[in-house]
Amino acid sequence: MACTENREPKVSVFLCFSFLCATVLLSCGRVWGQTSAVFACDVVKNPALAGFGFCDKSLSVEDRVGDLVKRLTLQEKIGNLVNGAAEVSRLGIPKYQWWSEALHGVSNIGPGTHFSSVVPGATSFPMPILTAASFNTTLFEAIGRVVSTEARAMYNVGLAGLTFWSPNINIFRDPRWGRGQETPGEDPLLSSQYATGYVKGLQQTDDGDSNKLKVAACCKHYTAYDLDNWKGVQRYTFNAVVTQQDLDDTFQPPFKSCVIDGNVASVMCSYNQVNGKPTCADPDLLKGVIRGQWKLNGYIVSDCDSVEVLFKDQHYTKTPEEAAAKTILAGLDLDCGNYLGQYTEGAVKQGLLDEASINIAVSNNFATLMRLGFFDGDPSKQPYGNLGPKDVCTSQNQELAREAARQGIVLLKNSPGSLPLNAKAIKSLAVIGPNANATRVMIGNYEGIPCNYISPLQGLTALVPTSYAPGCPNVQCANAQLDDATKIAASADATVIIVGASLAIEAESLDRINILLPGQQQLLVSDVANASKGPVILVIMSGGGMDVSFAKTNDKITSILWVGYPGEAGGAAIADVIFGFHNPSGRLPMTWYPQSYVDKVPMTNMNMRADPATGYPGRTYRFYKGETVFSFGDGISFSSVEHRIVKAPQLVSFPLAEDHVCHSSECKSLDVADEHCQNLTFDFHIGVKNMGRISSSHTVLLFFTPPDVHNAPQKHLLAFEKVHLPGKSEAHVRFKVDVCKDLSVVDELGNRKVPLGQHLLHVGNLKHPLGVRI
Amino acid sequence: MACTENREPKVSVFLCFSFLCATVLLSCGRVWGQTSAVFACDVVKNPALAGFGFCDKSLSVEDRVGDLVKRLTLQEKIGNLVNGAAEVSRLGIPKYQWWSEALHGVSNIGPGTHFSSVVPGATSFPMPILTAASFNTTLFEAIGRVVSTEARAMYNVGLAGLTFWSPNINIFRDPRWGRGQETPGEDPLLSSQYATGYVKGLQQTDDGDSNKLKVAACCKHYTAYDLDNWKGVQRYTFNAVVTQQDLDDTFQPPFKSCVIDGNVASVMCSYNQVNGKPTCADPDLLKGVIRGQWKLNGYIVSDCDSVEVLFKDQHYTKTPEEAAAKTILAGLDLDCGNYLGQYTEGAVKQGLLDEASINIAVSNNFATLMRLGFFDGDPSKQPYGNLGPKDVCTSQNQELAREAARQGIVLLKNSPGSLPLNAKAIKSLAVIGPNANATRVMIGNYEGIPCNYISPLQGLTALVPTSYAPGCPNVQCANAQLDDATKIAASADATVIIVGASLAIEAESLDRINILLPGQQQLLVSDVANASKGPVILVIMSGGGMDVSFAKTNDKITSILWVGYPGEAGGAAIADVIFGFHNPSGRLPMTWYPQSYVDKVPMTNMNMRADPATGYPGRTYRFYKGETVFSFGDGISFSSVEHRIVKAPQLVSFPLAEDHVCHSSECKSLDVADEHCQNLTFDFHIGVKNMGRISSSHTVLLFFTPPDVHNAPQKHLLAFEKVHLPGKSEAHVRFKVDVCKDLSVVDELGNRKVPLGQHLLHVGNLKHPLGVRI
Repeated sequence: MACTENREPKVSVFLCFSFLCATVLLSCGRVWGQTSAVFACDVVKNPALAGFGFCDKSLSVEDRVGDLVKRLTLQEKIGNLVNGAAEVSRLGIPKYQWWSEALHGVSNIGPGTHFSSVVPGATSFPMPILTAASFNTTLFEAIGRVVSTEARAMYNVGLAGLTFWSPNINIFRDPRWGRGQETPGEDPLLSSQYATGYVKGLQQTDDGDSNKLKVAACCKHYTAYDLDNWKGVQRYTFNAVVTQQDLDDTFQPPFKSCVIDGNVASVMCSYNQVNGKPTCADPDLLKGVIRGQWKLNGYIVSDCDSVEVLFKDQHYTKTPEEAAAKTILAGLDLDCGNYLGQYTEGAVKQGLLDEASINIAVSNNFATLMRLGFFDGDPSKQPYGNLGPKDVCTSQNQELAREAARQGIVLLKNSPGSLPLNAKAIKSLAVIGPNANATRVMIGNYEGIPCNYISPLQGLTALVPTSYAPGCPNVQCANAQLDDATKIAASADATVIIVGASLAIEAESLDRINILLPGQQQLLVSDVANASKGPVILVIMSGGGMDVSFAKTNDKITSILWVGYPGEAGGAAIADVIFGFHNPSGRLPMTWYPQSYVDKVPMTNMNMRADPATGYPGRTYRFYKGETVFSFGDGISFSSVEHRIVKAPQLVSFPLAEDHVCHSSECKSLDVADEHCQNLTFDFHIGVKNMGRISSSHTVLLFFTPPDVHNAPQKHLLAFEKVHLPGKSEAHVRFKVDVCKDLSVVDELGNRKVPLGQHLLHVGNLKHPLGVRI
Repeated sequence: MACTENREPKVSVFLCFSFLCATVLLSCGRVWGQTSAVFACDVVKNPALAGFGFCDKSLSVEDRVGDLVKRLTLQEKIGNLVNGAAEVSRLGIPKYQWWSEALHGVSNIGPGTHFSSVVPGATSFPMPILTAASFNTTLFEAIGRVVSTEARAMYNVGLAGLTFWSPNINIFRDPRWGRGQETPGEDPLLSSQYATGYVKGLQQTDDGDSNKLKVAACCKHYTAYDLDNWKGVQRYTFNAVVTQQDLDDTFQPPFKSCVIDGNVASVMCSYNQVNGKPTCADPDLLKGVIRGQWKLNGYIVSDCDSVEVLFKDQHYTKTPEEAAAKTILAGLDLDCGNYLGQYTEGAVKQGLLDEASINIAVSNNFATLMRLGFFDGDPSKQPYGNLGPKDVCTSQNQELAREAARQGIVLLKNSPGSLPLNAKAIKSLAVIGPNANATRVMIGNYEGIPCNYISPLQGLTALVPTSYAPGCPNVQCANAQLDDATKIAASADATVIIVGASLAIEAESLDRINILLPGQQQLLVSDVANASKGPVILVIMSGGGMDVSFAKTNDKITSILWVGYPGEAGGAAIADVIFGFHNPSGRLPMTWYPQSYVDKVPMTNMNMRADPATGYPGRTYRFYKGETVFSFGDGISFSSVEHRIVKAPQLVSFPLAEDHVCHSSECKSLDVADEHCQNLTFDFHIGVKNMGRISSSHTVLLFFTPPDVHNAPQKHLLAFEKVHLPGKSEAHVRFKVDVCKDLSVVDELGNRKVPLGQHLLHVGNLKHPLGVRI
């Protein structure tokens, strides 16, 4: 590999984006030297540009794009179908790198973003799976807002682009998926809310003009993508066989919300095929659904090199030109990769593709840049032009990273007398485990350089005297070192064992085979617990759920916390919870299955619904009836909370001869022709009381169990809301239930219907749910 | 790294010899082109050489060496103090590479030996720990003979040297030692017998002339070296604090036997210090013991770069020149490395060293080459000159590799109805485990390229229909894949699970931290055993012992075999034992401790003897009284064997007023001045009867428990002999016990004494030993 600046190549591991690459990448240790933003229409430097319509801010985006595209040659258009977009110097348009990432903070994984001495790091929030566990929609948006502010600040000094390919909102269908950590979990509603919130935080400008973008987000990977590399089955060639019912009520809802409610500026199509067609070449999925039904205002981008993949690996087309034509005709606008750059002209020459289709694609791309202000001249004179390095890694932003981790952390077990520990009473705390001094591990993937790290060991040591023995040199833990660990545990007042996974266990291109604690960690935990004289706090740092049944039933292990990958301030947040400076309120956003589950369920079976005929147990809390280690929604606090119904209808009924089909795409109302049920909604108010003396946050999860028809889910999250409750206080949570939107189900053909019969609403997860039948 | 032949460097891992090196070495993919042996005194090419005394075969080695050395300049001598010895072209002496290896077959680990298209591989025998388990002294020698024949054959075509730095006979003091696999185990007698046998096999010429050498062996690493890298303690700087008593009755005996009984041509001093002195710079250990007491006829070589290490890492000398002077004055003759090449001349100039000392060193080196025939002209005209590629990897040699593995394999558990399996009755055999399809793993370290591999899976599949699921991708096994493994086990007639370690777990520079099955292997074994319907055969492939208590007590696991690292034919040998084509007869050459042992014993504590005051439990079966998982000498067969005493004295007594000091260094007789006890020996004959119908080999282990004085061992292997017993037959094993040699103990000051009191002889390992009191 040649390095342009004559520097030594350095070896980097785990730098792969959704990109075909070797495990180890060589990259040049380039120092990023640019210090100002790239932009078009620099009328100061080139006054002639002022005369072009596409530089005229007073015109509509549509008119400006039309003006621009008609000035371009075919080659110039094709140069703007790829992520490394070509300059059009004669029109004052610089080259632009579309690929930046911001999964949980500004990331330098994509080539569009860099850190330097000017901006050495950015705030690194928890991985989305933990943020989702907060069930706090305002937090999702608040994080997005901080990230877009830091992104704009970095753009202004030439270190970042304006187009960020985040969030990842695929349903976390199987606990083994290596990228589950990047997602908001297994529930369609929570994923939809996360997508909407985070995208709004990234995109919305302060003036609320939906035609403008602070930065452009991207919901990915569309669709039914949730398998990376399992027992040799690779995402690049996997054909996800999905029923229309599962597609419509599980895989699509987050994308639908992202586009319709979040107004996202981009959707990324995935590598895999869905029912035999590569998503990036499927006109029904792209033109039909995204643009036709959901009305995307933005561009559709391919996962990196997926156009090439569908030809070379999937052999879906006979030639590269055919791949270029098929994807553009299906509705793809931008290629992450250079395949469209290479083969689009050939496709036109071969008559496979018309220039009009290219015009549509490139117009979608330019329109996005227009909305971002890229064609508005010097950004320092535009909104957000005053943002700069001073606005990155501010103490407020870093505090939000800590707060996000605190709000996500889930307390799964707590025996009397265990948590919170009393910092004044603890004279010695044993801190043990391969993730006890985690730094990078806390950050997860699609990461940037964080502002700083507070490891769990640092966080705990700041509060009480600690002794530390990792016990396992890394999470793989081939060879646990038990003696030092048991020794310090035996003499300490309390023990914190921080175990789990890392990107060596679960990652992009690395699905798990089993879901136990890796290597000899279970042995370490058991032996340390056995040796401990005080409370034993087991902290699980992981993206996916772990079968820790052994710990759940072991009385020596007095508390269990799950902390996801908690980001740069994760260690401080963990310490805050352990010592009671924060009352935990996170709830699991995914089912924790026992190992026996993955032993009998092939990851490749996409079916969400159980099949009693074959013994297939189904997936997620919505369909799986078997034993769990922990369940979706599980999570306790240091306080006891009581619920009561404040307001609910005694009976909601409307007369229908048969299951009522909802015609609206959003299912906001029943058929307008039916007077009885137009806009039928009712109120459902819950009182939540904190019975304890310390304040507590609490999420009310409102589940819905429909009549048992159409293979409907056994239960389904209908709404949720998180409230903060001072000690001994009560709050009322008000839900407005829309019969058609909220109480409908998707039938086997993908039609949304309100089924006849008894609908049960209940608040959970409680053993005895507070319910109302309607 | 520059590659002389312009080839791509290739990355090789685990190629480090006893040598300071990085984990990853870059080496050039050089094709070895030479096709004839290197030798001096080529009088055909240079008739003038015939006139030199050193080329005159009719003279004694001493005279020839004297003639040669007096012709050399100081610089020429110094060029022959290092392993890459310099040529002296004016005297027709070519350069010579001293460093070749042959731990368990000709190896290409040292720079002196290479494989090529002419000789693509050599017979790879089991690692010595398994060969030692055969307790078959004739086998030790037979293997040595095959290795030296293959080595000579390779020398003749320019692919190997004549000086091989094997065997490794350090006592396997601690189960964690990464190089324990290279040794014959923990017992001084077995190690001594192995050293003697293997060295004789390598060195002895067919004419029995002890002044000639077939190839030169080297006993290493002298002395008290058995720690590589444990919790950051490195062999390069470790100071082994050893009592005189432990030194004399544990660490030194194998070296003493190697030199005195084996007549070895070389001893290698180690990296570590012993009681504050680097072994290679200790005149007492080298000149005093090896040359003075034991009368080495040969050269003393340093472990690679250890002269440099004692200056640079140990800071034992103030200058490199001082290091050169001190080692040569202590008795070192050859430097593996180039430190003596660089600094010896400076040492002479600084007056630290006289040329006479260099003459002694270089004379020892040249004398060895003389004995090897290196100075006898064209080797093709000399003995062994007819050996060539046809003599390497012969079917007989490969059969011996298989036989060696068979004889070493130890059966540790066998429930009724388990082994041997009946090949005709087994319709399906489940083969499971990370080492089930092992190839390279079977070969261990200091390896060559084997003739071929027969993996366990291949060996078993040759006999019965098999299904295969590794369960763990490698022995580290971070993530066991349980489902496929349990599935095939559930439907098979019998299950073979092959687990254990590899060089990734235990190796040079890699001592273990714990001694459990690595990673999730224990989980795999338990789950597979639980799922199996037929017998479950657990096969442990490892160098060191494993705490497999869980398997010992699990009734579902019906048999346990330990197979060491069984070499190229290991898979065939395992299959032979499992299906009863070979009746196992191996016995453990080392104690298998429980994990709790290593948790409480620091590897750095060299003491062999227990210390009740501190709770230190002592080491090896000779001193350790605690629980074991399996014990030294354990091993059963498919036959039951009964012992009886055929001949033994009722009482042996001799009148002494006090403990009798043995004056002879070999302790072959009591003080000649004492008429009563001169050459006092007695016969002890044991009858061994095979009670079964199939033939069986059986090793009689004769232990001795001395009176409880001088911290003597609780028991001690006095002699052993392996006999082959056809079905229903009896053999008599005749031991001649020498009172002074065999019944003496070493006191705290290192004096060998015959203590007064009752001496117990017993045959083991039997729960109720067959004993005789004398």
